[in-house]
Amino acid sequence: MLHAVIMAGGSGTRFWPESRTARPKQLLPIMGGKAMLAETVTRLDPLIPAERIWVVTNAAQVDGIRACCPELPDSNILVEPCARNTSACVGLAAAVIHTADENATMVVLPADHVIGPRDEFQRSLQAGAEVAEAGANFVTYGIVPDYPATGYGYIQRADKHSDPHGVECFNVDSFKEKPDLATAEKFLESGEYLWNSGIFVWTSSTILNAIAEHMPDLDSGLQKITATVGSSAYQSTVDAIYPSLPAEPVDIGIMEKVDSVQVLSAPYNWSDVGSWKALYDEVEHDNDGNALVFAEGGKLLTHDAKGVLAYSSSKQCIAVLGLDDIVVVHTKDAILIAPRDRSEEVKKFVEQLKAEERTDLL
Amino acid sequence: MLHAVIMAGGSGTRFWPESRTARPKQLLPIMGGKAMLAETVTRLDPLIPAERIWVVTNAAQVDGIRACCPELPDSNILVEPCARNTSACVGLAAAVIHTADENATMVVLPADHVIGPRDEFQRSLQAGAEVAEAGANFVTYGIVPDYPATGYGYIQRADKHSDPHGVECFNVDSFKEKPDLATAEKFLESGEYLWNSGIFVWTSSTILNAIAEHMPDLDSGLQKITATVGSSAYQSTVDAIYPSLPAEPVDIGIMEKVDSVQVLSAPYNWSDVGSWKALYDEVEHDNDGNALVFAEGGKLLTHDAKGVLAYSSSKQCIAVLGLDDIVVVHTKDAILIAPRDRSEEVKKFVEQLKAEERTDLL
Repeated sequence: MLHAVIMAGGSGTRFWPESRTARPKQLLPIMGGKAMLAETVTRLDPLIPAERIWVVTNAAQVDGIRACCPELPDSNILVEPCARNTSACVGLAAAVIHTADENATMVVLPADHVIGPRDEFQRSLQAGAEVAEAGANFVTYGIVPDYPATGYGYIQRADKHSDPHGVECFNVDSFKEKPDLATAEKFLESGEYLWNSGIFVWTSSTILNAIAEHMPDLDSGLQKITATVGSSAYQSTVDAIYPSLPAEPVDIGIMEKVDSVQVLSAPYNWSDVGSWKALYDEVEHDNDGNALVFAEGGKLLTHDAKGVLAYSSSKQCIAVLGLDDIVVVHTKDAILIAPRDRSEEVKKFVEQLKAEERTDLL
Repeated sequence: MLHAVIMAGGSGTRFWPESRTARPKQLLPIMGGKAMLAETVTRLDPLIPAERIWVVTNAAQVDGIRACCPELPDSNILVEPCARNTSACVGLAAAVIHTADENATMVVLPADHVIGPRDEFQRSLQAGAEVAEAGANFVTYGIVPDYPATGYGYIQRADKHSDPHGVECFNVDSFKEKPDLATAEKFLESGEYLWNSGIFVWTSSTILNAIAEHMPDLDSGLQKITATVGSSAYQSTVDAIYPSLPAEPVDIGIMEKVDSVQVLSAPYNWSDVGSWKALYDEVEHDNDGNALVFAEGGKLLTHDAKGVLAYSSSKQCIAVLGLDDIVVVHTKDAILIAPRDRSEEVKKFVEQLKAEERTDLL
């Protein structure tokens, strides 16, 4: 059966002041509608029902996730006692799912990406599942780049060998870390590189076998956890084992070491929406290039102001006069104002607030 | 006895979004402490006790004024049914006060100016009262200009003739309307001109006699009101008479027509704080020229930002990154962001909201 594993452990600070320790990006309605995680769950409907959707997260977010996605069974929320990167995250999910369904195929998804349209996305997942099941393949999704991004990893594709469900499928030549601008420009020009979307498909057997072969320390920890799945000792075992597991990205720990990696060219629009600037690029603009994102309605007033992103999680009027290309973010206890292109520097405020131990604002 | 008449009828929109129809500037803690009106009342203590402080206002503001200045007797709040400019306002107060105290001397004050220190202010009022009582004089206060302001009226002073309580007192040559910049520069250079502070002192007899002589229509209306002061017919008489009274500023209707006008050179600091920009100039700045005005505490975070005015009526964190010389105003339902020097253009938003009938934001 097809299962989805949503990785929701992030505690990103790039959306401060809207994102907070117990309210990270995936739990926020960053696009103005539902929380990103809820959108991610909805995006799987009807291909993968709630009982086969698993969320891996940390203890601080469990309540938020339950509130945000009440349709998920409690036991489908897998709680990591500490962050151990994506190989452990994926391994834990595989161990639990494989115990429940030894013929499971797993779609692994970040919780906080923007993807559409939904039909195309589901078509690509069906294609990925077929490729994964057909030959113990590791399936990744690559996004055709439209600018020389330096913030994403890249996948160098090799020969195209099929197009299941009309989705182009290539062998993978190599994975590349985030490049510098000159390299990114070469990648773009060559036409051979795709952005690494961080979305994967494999069967639970395939990934567990690969972990056993390439990450034996992780494997031995997972074996101990597997022995307790479904028992009252499960969570305490996870809590005891997890801190000693190796912390490695699945890209490096597994994907770069195995042979049978395939990349599907994503037939959908995709953004990881990594900053306020990126959010501006994703949402609709009026004739002056102004965009408003209000979770509960609200009003943007502008006078001689263009290219403004106005964001509020409550019903607020935001009035901007005589300033172009700025971001205005309003939350119940904090406001951010910055030039759009510098919105990533918001981390400076997060650092300062940490230094001042202002946990009320973090 | 010395009485104070505080003119609190303004419905200024220059402090939107903090100022609203039922919450105009004088009812706001624009300097971060108490409401401007409460500061104005406190500034008279102990020279003029609450029972001799009178506030002239409109019906919409009565509740706000009572809440803001609970020490004022209810009957000292004089309610105008409609605005009829300052001559009617002053006339109404004179009629009521003179009925209660035929030897009254009246200090007439705007409700929403910033003045300090308090001792110097009270010393100047004592001086003004003596001058007013000595020769049926009309006393005004002039502010020594420190830049060629085009937003104030000016008073051309003539000979200095005394300095009661150490306050310089001059005859008045003429009143000047708000000048253009070139004229204002000449005024400044000449050293003969003072800003018209809008603060006056006269005896109730003096002003009522002058009204009888120079504004007979106002006088005849006030006679009818005077006949009902203290009776149950008082307010209904005011409501009936007021709309037909002439609407003229006291400067033009009276001051420019009488001979015995004196101007005292104000020994205090003064600002009418007419805009967010003006507020910035009045408050303390940190080393980066940033100023925060929080009525209930709050926090200003800046990174590469100078000359910022951050204002909030609630406990809010305002974070500004990479923008200089802006104003950020936060209220519970609206936010304003503008370059400091353009903050007066906020009236554009007020006009737009009026056109859209968004009374919730006005």
